[in-house]
Amino acid sequence: MSDLKLVSRQHSNHNTVIRLGDELIGAKELCLIAGPCAVESETQLNEIAKGLSELGVKFMRGGAYKPRTSPYAFQGLKKEGLKMLKNASDTYGLKIVTEVLDTTLIEEVYPYADILQVGSRNAKNYQFLKELGKVDKPILLKRGMSSTINEWLLAAEYILLGGNENVILCERGIRTFDTSVRNTMDIASIPLVKELSHLPVIADPSQGTGKRSLVTPLSLAAIAAGADGLMIEVHNEPEEALSDGFQSMYLNTMGDMVKALRAQAEHSGRTLNLKKEPQIV
Amino acid sequence: MSDLKLVSRQHSNHNTVIRLGDELIGAKELCLIAGPCAVESETQLNEIAKGLSELGVKFMRGGAYKPRTSPYAFQGLKKEGLKMLKNASDTYGLKIVTEVLDTTLIEEVYPYADILQVGSRNAKNYQFLKELGKVDKPILLKRGMSSTINEWLLAAEYILLGGNENVILCERGIRTFDTSVRNTMDIASIPLVKELSHLPVIADPSQGTGKRSLVTPLSLAAIAAGADGLMIEVHNEPEEALSDGFQSMYLNTMGDMVKALRAQAEHSGRTLNLKKEPQIV
Amino acid sequence: MSDLKLVSRQHSNHNTVIRLGDELIGAKELCLIAGPCAVESETQLNEIAKGLSELGVKFMRGGAYKPRTSPYAFQGLKKEGLKMLKNASDTYGLKIVTEVLDTTLIEEVYPYADILQVGSRNAKNYQFLKELGKVDKPILLKRGMSSTINEWLLAAEYILLGGNENVILCERGIRTFDTSVRNTMDIASIPLVKELSHLPVIADPSQGTGKRSLVTPLSLAAIAAGADGLMIEVHNEPEEALSDGFQSMYLNTMGDMVKALRAQAEHSGRTLNLKKEPQIV
Amino acid sequence: MSDLKLVSRQHSNHNTVIRLGDELIGAKELCLIAGPCAVESETQLNEIAKGLSELGVKFMRGGAYKPRTSPYAFQGLKKEGLKMLKNASDTYGLKIVTEVLDTTLIEEVYPYADILQVGSRNAKNYQFLKELGKVDKPILLKRGMSSTINEWLLAAEYILLGGNENVILCERGIRTFDTSVRNTMDIASIPLVKELSHLPVIADPSQGTGKRSLVTPLSLAAIAAGADGLMIEVHNEPEEALSDGFQSMYLNTMGDMVKALRAQAEHSGRTLNLKKEPQIV
Repeated sequence: MSDLKLVSRQHSNHNTVIRLGDELIGAKELCLIAGPCAVESETQLNEIAKGLSELGVKFMRGGAYKPRTSPYAFQGLKKEGLKMLKNASDTYGLKIVTEVLDTTLIEEVYPYADILQVGSRNAKNYQFLKELGKVDKPILLKRGMSSTINEWLLAAEYILLGGNENVILCERGIRTFDTSVRNTMDIASIPLVKELSHLPVIADPSQGTGKRSLVTPLSLAAIAAGADGLMIEVHNEPEEALSDGFQSMYLNTMGDMVKALRAQAEHSGRTLNLKKEPQIV
Repeated sequence: MSDLKLVSRQHSNHNTVIRLGDELIGAKELCLIAGPCAVESETQLNEIAKGLSELGVKFMRGGAYKPRTSPYAFQGLKKEGLKMLKNASDTYGLKIVTEVLDTTLIEEVYPYADILQVGSRNAKNYQFLKELGKVDKPILLKRGMSSTINEWLLAAEYILLGGNENVILCERGIRTFDTSVRNTMDIASIPLVKELSHLPVIADPSQGTGKRSLVTPLSLAAIAAGADGLMIEVHNEPEEALSDGFQSMYLNTMGDMVKALRAQAEHSGRTLNLKKEPQIV
Repeated sequence: MSDLKLVSRQHSNHNTVIRLGDELIGAKELCLIAGPCAVESETQLNEIAKGLSELGVKFMRGGAYKPRTSPYAFQGLKKEGLKMLKNASDTYGLKIVTEVLDTTLIEEVYPYADILQVGSRNAKNYQFLKELGKVDKPILLKRGMSSTINEWLLAAEYILLGGNENVILCERGIRTFDTSVRNTMDIASIPLVKELSHLPVIADPSQGTGKRSLVTPLSLAAIAAGADGLMIEVHNEPEEALSDGFQSMYLNTMGDMVKALRAQAEHSGRTLNLKKEPQIV
Repeated sequence: MSDLKLVSRQHSNHNTVIRLGDELIGAKELCLIAGPCAVESETQLNEIAKGLSELGVKFMRGGAYKPRTSPYAFQGLKKEGLKMLKNASDTYGLKIVTEVLDTTLIEEVYPYADILQVGSRNAKNYQFLKELGKVDKPILLKRGMSSTINEWLLAAEYILLGGNENVILCERGIRTFDTSVRNTMDIASIPLVKELSHLPVIADPSQGTGKRSLVTPLSLAAIAAGADGLMIEVHNEPEEALSDGFQSMYLNTMGDMVKALRAQAEHSGRTLNLKKEPQIV
């Protein structure tokens, strides 16, 4: 692993802490990012944003550009979706995490996002990673569905080498022979990456399992294993979702999950970064 | 999954609880099985058994017959090893879990074992599984390194159909493209199997990761995800171990791990099944 | 790969040639083994044996004991099936290849088989492999569905070390993420194993692909890549087969395939080992 | 597979034949593309181009932009490399196949390439694939290292839907548990894709195996299985290559391989598309 330079603990043994206004990622408090797979409408997004805000959540995810296996599947609302994200986040005081699909879209997405997400399918798109090294906002870098730990860290190395030190790694499951679940969540990657690197590591058990009933247990497992945060898909009406509804939590029962995550975080010597006085939890 | 009959929750929605004297597996208390990969000598085994007993551990693992990839690797002490296991367990009041390699060895191993372990390499040895259905001791059935969830449960179905209802499933990592770790621990299999089946499920993070530093975080993750127990490799001198020392915990510092497991079990609404008054923890 | 001793080209650079009466396996002539997945009835087997004999085929496969993922699936005709194999082979002058499921069945199967087949699920059943080292008939050793090349060769090493030098390796596809086909046929394993070992290597594209239409192209590919033979599933009525009919060739059109295999063998500087005057080809 | 529309045989049962001046790809003649992994210097490229031309080869590959796992590895000569490709191709009358790394580079690479190559790492970069649908030159679309057959064909569907019907599919090996070779060449994908789609399919056994000694046997296997062409890495001095020398054929002994490929093509009822009067073969 000799080419792991900037990302390695040999380079810096201090955990990287990313600052977004008053929020810290990679410090004692765990980051909770929640929201729909895709932005579908003003109504959908506002309802979700309102619900998350009431739960104390500070970071909202939502895809405006969606990378879809089939060209005939819903591709996202694009710029309209970005505007909806911005409006909802302004209204409810949420920070926005959204995916950028390639170099040509960085400029368009940049003003609407607090954190730029790089999807699993771009995990080895090195030309794009080089460009993200020039951006002055944090990058949430998902692991490729067939990336080794070393390849994942080298992808981060590309971004750091370009000048952007604010990279959040995200384990989202890998592709294996077992199709009982959508992906195989590699929980061991979390403590292993934290041994090797000073970068924060979060987990996405929604993509990682593809099954709603597994999201809470895998979230707890990720925290127990040392994750610095979670990214969770939630929807006001999962059955009507335009993509991935089967793995989305129900908004109206998400309070129980947030409570469980907070309790596990505290058991693990961390806290869950929530607004001071959430109405529901 | 229509051929999952006896093992399924449709067949019985009551969690199977296995009784071994006063001990229960599959009930509220989590089962902790610890011990060396292989029985190597009287001295080694007694030292480990004594240490485990002092930590409050009630179940000891140890291989007398070892399935090794190379015919030139240490194959186990065989019958001598079984006797050492029996002696140590009698002295320190431990229940024995040990592997049976095939049908021809059931009779030999039976008197020395409280729980018969079926290794990953035998996960599809159906002739053997049928024979184990006739045995009146519990079977610890490891998942095959390339078994899907369905195949794993069907292996258990063979044993139940043969008449033995006392099967403990054990997730021990699957084989994937990523060789950063020895196996990829499929933590999601734990809650998924518990959805599908009434059988208890434990986790083996020693085999599952192949790396000492990952054993504690993955053990905590397994408990957080709902596991009914753990199987942990421990050695008095890992550097001198005849097999798999790199993934064995140090006996003399295992107390910290046991404390952490107990705390996590209690946080998760369970307990850790330890002797009443452990000397160290 | 330092534990590859007896199987390696360093040990013997002469290709192992296995003699079965007048037939050679591993020499210039390619071995063609064909027959049903499972022996189902006297009628079925005789019809297939007659057809194969007319095509000039000299080796017949057929399972009397079937390792099935589900305990509720057809498990084979057992001893009755072995007798049917023997009768059919005597009548039509075919050598018999049939699977032995474990150590306890070696004695039963031995008198009926010319070549003992070890299935993919037993590829790491080392206790069994040791026993097969004591048998004085050739062993057809299938690659495990998740065995590396090194593990596969070490399985053969177990048999050679036990005293049986007549091992035929059989590539039958490995388990990968892609479920478009049943297994991923690893054609590169054929020339790679021939570089590393002096043992003959054949291919099983029926199991290897699980799809009838792919069997002929993959058979040709295996020969082009240097295989020493082929194992092909064929059935008189694939639609009625009790197992794996979807991957079985139709007996009544198998003549075209045999012609194509013979032509490819000759193009590749080999011959196809067929009876002197086949009636159909 | 209902979203396979334009690429499917249901849409068009006529094999797509791509025309590049006088050359056809996807017709009776097999396409042979050869050249270095990366363009390294004027001298290197001219020597290889000259050698290939003398062997009768009509298509040259060579990377000017290289996607490398490590940011510290040689990234290609970029525009200088493109110019060298153009010069060499003009001098020796070769058509150029070279990789485009992303949307932002299409315009730069376009004038220098006869066929635009999309690498394995971009197999799910849908934004890029949409852009390639607008290009009026053929696209060589490599299979993603973890793409199923369906995902690979859907990637092609993106390009066809964008308006570019000239897509050549290229099997280059998939990522599996076995690390004996660099990738596992999925030879069965060739006849399977030809069943499902009318597009031409070629094979890249250099990437597919990562081992020089396996390139010729796997090339023959690919032709025997129905491939429409081959892409082969060759270098004048493999030991000195800046990337992937271990899998490159030696230029000075490539004549033997070309002869073998031509013979196999003719045996399989095809021809190998070579210049009329090659000097060496």
